[in-house]
Amino acid sequence: MPDTIPADSVGLVEPTTVHFDQPLQLSCGQTLNEYDLVIETYGELNTEKNNGVLICHALSGHHHAAGYHSMEDRKPGWWDNFIGPGKPLDTDHFFIVSLNNLGGCHGSTGPTSSNPVTGKLYGSDFPIVTVEDWVDSQVRLADHLGIEQWAAVVGGSLGGMQTLYWSMAYPDRLRHAIVVASASKLSAQNIAFNEVARQAIMSDENFRGGQYLEQGTLPKSGLGLARMVGHITYLSDDAMGQKFGRELKNEEFSFDYGVQFQVESYLRYQAENFSGSFDANTYLLMTRALDYFDPARQFNDDLSQALSPAQARFLLVSFTTDWRFSPERSREITDALLKAGKQVSYMEVDAPQGHDAFLMNIPRYVNAVAGYMKRVADECKEASV
Amino acid sequence: MPDTIPADSVGLVEPTTVHFDQPLQLSCGQTLNEYDLVIETYGELNTEKNNGVLICHALSGHHHAAGYHSMEDRKPGWWDNFIGPGKPLDTDHFFIVSLNNLGGCHGSTGPTSSNPVTGKLYGSDFPIVTVEDWVDSQVRLADHLGIEQWAAVVGGSLGGMQTLYWSMAYPDRLRHAIVVASASKLSAQNIAFNEVARQAIMSDENFRGGQYLEQGTLPKSGLGLARMVGHITYLSDDAMGQKFGRELKNEEFSFDYGVQFQVESYLRYQAENFSGSFDANTYLLMTRALDYFDPARQFNDDLSQALSPAQARFLLVSFTTDWRFSPERSREITDALLKAGKQVSYMEVDAPQGHDAFLMNIPRYVNAVAGYMKRVADECKEASV
Repeated sequence: MPDTIPADSVGLVEPTTVHFDQPLQLSCGQTLNEYDLVIETYGELNTEKNNGVLICHALSGHHHAAGYHSMEDRKPGWWDNFIGPGKPLDTDHFFIVSLNNLGGCHGSTGPTSSNPVTGKLYGSDFPIVTVEDWVDSQVRLADHLGIEQWAAVVGGSLGGMQTLYWSMAYPDRLRHAIVVASASKLSAQNIAFNEVARQAIMSDENFRGGQYLEQGTLPKSGLGLARMVGHITYLSDDAMGQKFGRELKNEEFSFDYGVQFQVESYLRYQAENFSGSFDANTYLLMTRALDYFDPARQFNDDLSQALSPAQARFLLVSFTTDWRFSPERSREITDALLKAGKQVSYMEVDAPQGHDAFLMNIPRYVNAVAGYMKRVADECKEASV
Repeated sequence: MPDTIPADSVGLVEPTTVHFDQPLQLSCGQTLNEYDLVIETYGELNTEKNNGVLICHALSGHHHAAGYHSMEDRKPGWWDNFIGPGKPLDTDHFFIVSLNNLGGCHGSTGPTSSNPVTGKLYGSDFPIVTVEDWVDSQVRLADHLGIEQWAAVVGGSLGGMQTLYWSMAYPDRLRHAIVVASASKLSAQNIAFNEVARQAIMSDENFRGGQYLEQGTLPKSGLGLARMVGHITYLSDDAMGQKFGRELKNEEFSFDYGVQFQVESYLRYQAENFSGSFDANTYLLMTRALDYFDPARQFNDDLSQALSPAQARFLLVSFTTDWRFSPERSREITDALLKAGKQVSYMEVDAPQGHDAFLMNIPRYVNAVAGYMKRVADECKEASV
């Protein structure tokens, strides 16, 4: 909890729920007749409404990207080091919008919401949504906010996939696309790790076919396992080595299956923590959205062709030790953009933190985003004169 | 099933059970008063008894390394491509001994055996055994076979750890140590993956505190998950990409959590197959043996000092895309051996198959082992003259 709110913080913030009652056609064929999106906004929308920046979240993210909900909060929003006055996503210049995606478990309509048709909680009846569906719903949100064109859409990991799709499906509705530690599609290994996570959740006796909330149970151990696998793969071997090494919790081996090594203790803590605060059906759904995203598929695997409608300028960033969304994946996107004649800046950041690096204060990365967004802010002002 | 036994096969083989009734003191403090080891042997022990080669198995391995148990066998032993007449471990020259380690589930005394004290199955009461314990039991086996000194001890992965320990603890009982795709200790990431496997098994409702056999259940889904994680990490990202890519099982996405991608189908098959034929308590125990092995620990992390008693000559092999037992780990061992003034040859093989490469017919690797063992065979003959 902050004793005082730091000067470069957006301060105390409050989420807003936006209700949509225009039916949304989903990729799976189903239609959501109405739905809510929970959002937070930081900074002010200018008169010209040309300074909007949309933040798209990753697998376990949500709308609370910056600031504090109360003075009792232990931690600020998940990307607080990037969002605030004077920060790379500078709230003195930008109107920043962060949402919880459809299917999420932080207030937007999803598996933990009540199904208006049955009056019961959706649970596993909530349809599988895709990156494309999310972007479609985000377009509605932009309309609702009166934002014809975002100054930038920004996202890391799964958020980067949404940013990419914005650029190809709604080319005239964003001027810049910032895609961090992302990929145009998952590799077989990535899908495999997601499948382990899903199997862990679905084989938990408390999963109850996904209707655990209705039945008053929680598949905590399955969701915890899924999170453990995630955690290991978001960190690099080096990062884990530096953080934990082979350090023991107690001095001697106890020759049992309790916690022996610090890294075991850390994983169990993460699992326990996460499984008490996240929804298992949402986790399943997010991993499927990751698996399915592959915009080049309908273009004979020609990503360049898929990206050809894009009008935005691009900034791509990757991190050397990120092995789930490796630099190679970002280079593929960069190559495809260049081939399609787009403007793209690409930066490969030397960082030991693995995939998690995209959330961190790494000077070269922070400075690049800050510098890029400074230029975007200047453009907004020029256009406003 | 082979229609005819191939000419370079060791042919039909039969396992033998060797009973030991001299108590074995284990690292954990407990004592096994008596135990069985199941072994297979290929080739003939010569009069001088100087041509013995011991094969140490990895996590899910066993004594059946080569040949067929019957004409109905679909597959030969797990290292059949390396063991046989004219093969790198040439049964025309060597007497090859392969065993199932203590704690295993293929006939040697372990969790699925009857505890002579209680008359019940051991289950989770079987003590955690270590690499050191295994080697101690293998020394007894050598004594039983009348082999004073192995021509070579050979092992990949966890088997390589046993080989390393032989060289430091029983330096005068082997002339050569062949250590493939191994490490002198696991990294934090490796321990973390092992912990996920253990948690998957132990949180399965059918695990019953490890007494599932007594209670007539099987923690199949937990063991299956453990195997899935293992499989993903034994393959490289590239290997999975080449093998499965993003290929779909059916043409269209079905928007559910069934099998969509080929890689999911493969993993589920592997999980199902393995969990029906392997013992969960053995799996737990093997992962702990991996975690614990760290011979440099008592020498202030100075591996060179730990290896200083060794008299054997060493061949080390690693594979470029092996990220669980990476070339870096083998180079650490090589460096430590060189620093300690030992004879060591090290080969880093360019191979896309990840950790699994150690089981495969990769020409450079096969030729190196064959060439090395040819010299060892010549030495045996010279000493016999």
